[in-house]
Formats: sequence, structure tokens, C-alpha cells
Amino acid sequence: MPGAQVLLVAGTHGNELNAPWLFDQWIKNDSFINSRGITLSRVIGNPDARILCQRYLDRDLNRSFAEELLDLTHSNEFEINRAKELLSLYGPSGKEPCQIVFDFHSTTSSMGCCLVVYGRRPADLALASLIQYRLGLPIYLHEGDQAQSGFLVEAWPCGLVIEIGPVPQGVLNTKIIHQNKLTLEICLEEISKVQQGEALFPKQVIIHRHLGSKDFPRDLAGNVNAFIHKDLQGNDWFPIHSGDPLFENVLGEITPYKEDLSVVPVFINEGAYVEKNIAMSLTSKEVWPFSSEWELDLKKLILN
Amino acid sequence: MPGAQVLLVAGTHGNELNAPWLFDQWIKNDSFINSRGITLSRVIGNPDARILCQRYLDRDLNRSFAEELLDLTHSNEFEINRAKELLSLYGPSGKEPCQIVFDFHSTTSSMGCCLVVYGRRPADLALASLIQYRLGLPIYLHEGDQAQSGFLVEAWPCGLVIEIGPVPQGVLNTKIIHQNKLTLEICLEEISKVQQGEALFPKQVIIHRHLGSKDFPRDLAGNVNAFIHKDLQGNDWFPIHSGDPLFENVLGEITPYKEDLSVVPVFINEGAYVEKNIAMSLTSKEVWPFSSEWELDLKKLILN
Repeated sequence: MPGAQVLLVAGTHGNELNAPWLFDQWIKNDSFINSRGITLSRVIGNPDARILCQRYLDRDLNRSFAEELLDLTHSNEFEINRAKELLSLYGPSGKEPCQIVFDFHSTTSSMGCCLVVYGRRPADLALASLIQYRLGLPIYLHEGDQAQSGFLVEAWPCGLVIEIGPVPQGVLNTKIIHQNKLTLEICLEEISKVQQGEALFPKQVIIHRHLGSKDFPRDLAGNVNAFIHKDLQGNDWFPIHSGDPLFENVLGEITPYKEDLSVVPVFINEGAYVEKNIAMSLTSKEVWPFSSEWELDLKKLILN
Repeated sequence: MPGAQVLLVAGTHGNELNAPWLFDQWIKNDSFINSRGITLSRVIGNPDARILCQRYLDRDLNRSFAEELLDLTHSNEFEINRAKELLSLYGPSGKEPCQIVFDFHSTTSSMGCCLVVYGRRPADLALASLIQYRLGLPIYLHEGDQAQSGFLVEAWPCGLVIEIGPVPQGVLNTKIIHQNKLTLEICLEEISKVQQGEALFPKQVIIHRHLGSKDFPRDLAGNVNAFIHKDLQGNDWFPIHSGDPLFENVLGEITPYKEDLSVVPVFINEGAYVEKNIAMSLTSKEVWPFSSEWELDLKKLILN
């Protein structure tokens, strides 16, 4: 069968346990997930960090695929070398060249199961549209953020992140495992349908477009001095309007959302983002017409 | 005013953020929590681990207060030295000698807010009874477990752990912060009432007595190969009976609870306990008559 080689990555962050654990079970029992005849490569992104149950050793692997980092001839940072290694193994010109990558993550935010697309690459948008059409998953389009770059999937011609939460770091959870398995199966089914000329593309796609991120209120020394307001905690994907509470401090003082534009917050209170000065990201919910160019690009990639 | 000196500890585990954060706010604004005239010492248990947002550096600080560890004349392990330092500062014979300690923790388990007592020291049981009488908090009596020892509070004449969850590690949460504040205030109020001869002790106390812990099912290589069953996840403090499901694997195969004795599981799926081979602990719910000896011991301690 013609077709792209697909790379499946889990454990890019070593303390996100559910997807790598699912991969382990699959490797032990190959028929447990139907690969639909697709040529697959599976890899644990950061196995060294996984052993320590830490997000990373030296730096975030999922911010280490920026060209300027990959171009370094030498680095002492573990994750930069791991990024190079993953590309040399599974990159488009690697030993097992893959054209499409799915990168499975979990979050402490109440994101449910969603897809993250980085930038507006047509093949990414086509693939995300197919999966949204099957499962109704929200798509978070991350773009135009200078402070956050170098994501793994950007180093492949086509790639999506699957984010599932809420789940604490370091914890296996029944719901998260089942959501991982279902999403993985649907991703493979949809790739297979494209290969067989049976894919059904939607007429439109719902996009949550990244507008920017909000940090926690901080004191002069830079310490967080307020927490996510109770009405906002756990309410990812619900729109907020001018005057709605964002943060609350111990004295009960509220920091409200002040802009006129209503927005949809995502990744509210993700544990790993405190160090990135992100308390939440704000998005604009938009309905985009599906473009036939996206479909062409995805088909070109999958059918070689 | 006569009275014991009370030690308040938060951040014994560096990735449990809520209580240490509350302490920070309190230090910035002294009137924010009423100390009720009690002589207090406040300390962050493991500030170095807190900076890294890790549970510990070398070993669990809250298992480092065993006599055989404290007796070591030299140790390379950071937490053993920190345990000695805390005792030299705030131990009963330390620079600021404290007789009573409250150690504030958080958990990824759905424990709500509860008290943990280690062994059957009369003063501990009296103090826990007072707080249970005020707030209705469950008391988990941890005893007779050779595999888990050296808890911080055991190194003081009287001490309780306050455990609050569920909250992911590394995350501030509005509910957890408010529960921390309320419990802290009630602990201080009750100590103050004992000092003033106004404490109201109950006639009985409800104890969840530790029976033992259950590990996850593991494969021959020692890897976890099943997860907490969906009917059990989040159901800490609810009794389970013979035949009830404990674990489930990816094939849907269930490991049931097999004993005749009905028990109450606690600390179900606590993230930090995977490395300790604990998927949950099992307890027996018992109603104990309150003993006047407990009251005498607590009063002796508090009134010197």
C-alpha cells in the first residue's frame, strides 16, 4: 500500500505518563491497537526524563526544535541533543523517514481532548479537520507567539499535538488512557482513509485561534500573588467577557478581564506553564471554510 | 500567656505549592491570619526542592526523620541534613523549641481535607479529635507500617499532618488554598482554646485506621500494568466490599478486591506514591471513645 510513514510520539514530557504507558501496552500486545496497515514508528520522546518523572532534564524538549537550536554544532543541553537525535532517526531525512507526526501530551488543565496545530500549514489543517469531523475535538491554533516556539511537530512536514486533561503529572488515569486510545485509533483510521481515497473532509472547521497568553499577577519580586478565580478554574473552552473574573488574591481582591473582545481561555492553570509565565492562553473561536488546498497538500504527503 | 510554641510547616514536599504560597502571603500581611496570641514558628520544609518544583532532591524529606537516619554523623543526602537542621532550629531542644507541629501537604488523590496521625500518641489523638469536632475532618491513623516511617511530625512531641486534595503537583488551586487557610485557622483556634481552658473535647472520635497498602498490578519487569478502575478513581473514603473493582488493564480485565472484610481506601492514585509501590491504602473505619488521658497529655504539653 502506498502511503506516508507516520511517527507516533508519547512522553515528550517525562512526567506525562498516560500516552507512554499506553504505548508500552501496545508494544507488549501488537493487536491491541489496529495500525490500519500504516507504516508506523513509535517512540518515547524523552525516556530519560520519564525515568525521573520530570518534564525535562535541561530544557523543555517541546521547545527545542527551533532551527537556531538544531543548527548548533554542539550543545551541553540534553534535550537539544535529543531533538537532533529524534530528527536523525525519524525526521523526513532520517533513518526511518516519517512525513506525519502525532505527539501525545497531557495537561493539568481541563482541556478535555483537543488538537493543537502550530501555524497554518495546509496539511496540518486538513488532518485536524478530518479528526474534528470524526470526534468533534476542538482545535487550538497556536501561532505568532515569539515567546513559545520550537515545537516538535513543526520539524516534520505535517504534525499535530493531541492534548488531554485534566490529569496531574505523574498519574495514570482511566479516563485519560481511554481518550488517548480512542484518539490514536481515529488518527490512524483517518490517515488510512486518505490512503484509500475514502476520506470525508468537512465543509468547515472550528478553530480556536491563539491571541496571546496571560501571566499570573506577580509582586515586585516576580512571585505569583494571585490564583485563578474559582469561576474560571476548570472552565477551559468557555468564553469570557469584559468584567469576568480572572484571578483572585488571598484578600478576595479580583483581577477581572478588561478587554471589550470576548475570548475563549485555554490551558488555564497548566502546572508546567507557571515557569513560562502563562496562567492561561486566550483564543478567538472562529469558523473557517475548509480549503481544497489543504486537502491537496495532505493527499500529496500521504500518497507520496 | 502560657502555652506551647507551635511550629507550622509547609512545603515539606517541594512540588506541593498551595500551603507554602499561603504562608508567603501571610508573611507579607501579618494580620491576614489571626495567630490567636500563640507563639508561632513558620518554616518552608524543603525550600530547595520548592525552587525546582520537585518533591525532593535526594530522598523524601517526610521519610527522613527516622532515628537511625538522624543519628548518622554524616550524610550526603540533602534531606537527611535538612531534617537535622529543622530539628536543631525548631525541635523540642532546638533554638526556637516547639512542642507541637502542623505539617501541611497536598495530594493528587481526592482526599478532601483530612488529618493524618502517626501512631497512637495521646496528645496527637486529643488534638485531632478537637479539630474533627470543629470541622468534621476525617482522621487517617497511620501505624504499624515498616515500609513507611520517619515522618516529620513524629520528631516532635505532638504533631499532625493536614492533607488536602485533589490538586496536581505544581498547581495553585482556589479551593485548596481556601481549605488550607480554614484548617490552619481552626488549628490555631483550638490550641488557643486549650490554652485558655475553653477547649471542648468530643465524647468519641472517628478513626480510619491504616491496615496496609496495595500496589498496582505489575508485570514481571516490575512495570505497572493496570490502572485504578474508573469506579474507584476519586472515591477515597467510600467503603469497598469483596468483588468491587480495584484495577483495570487495557484489555478491560479487572482486578477485584477479594477480601471478606469491607475496607475504606484512601490516597487512591497519589502521584508521589507510585515510586513507593502504593496505589492506595486501605483503612478500617472505627468509632473510638475519647480518652481523658489524651486530653491530659495535650493539656500538659500546651500549658507546660
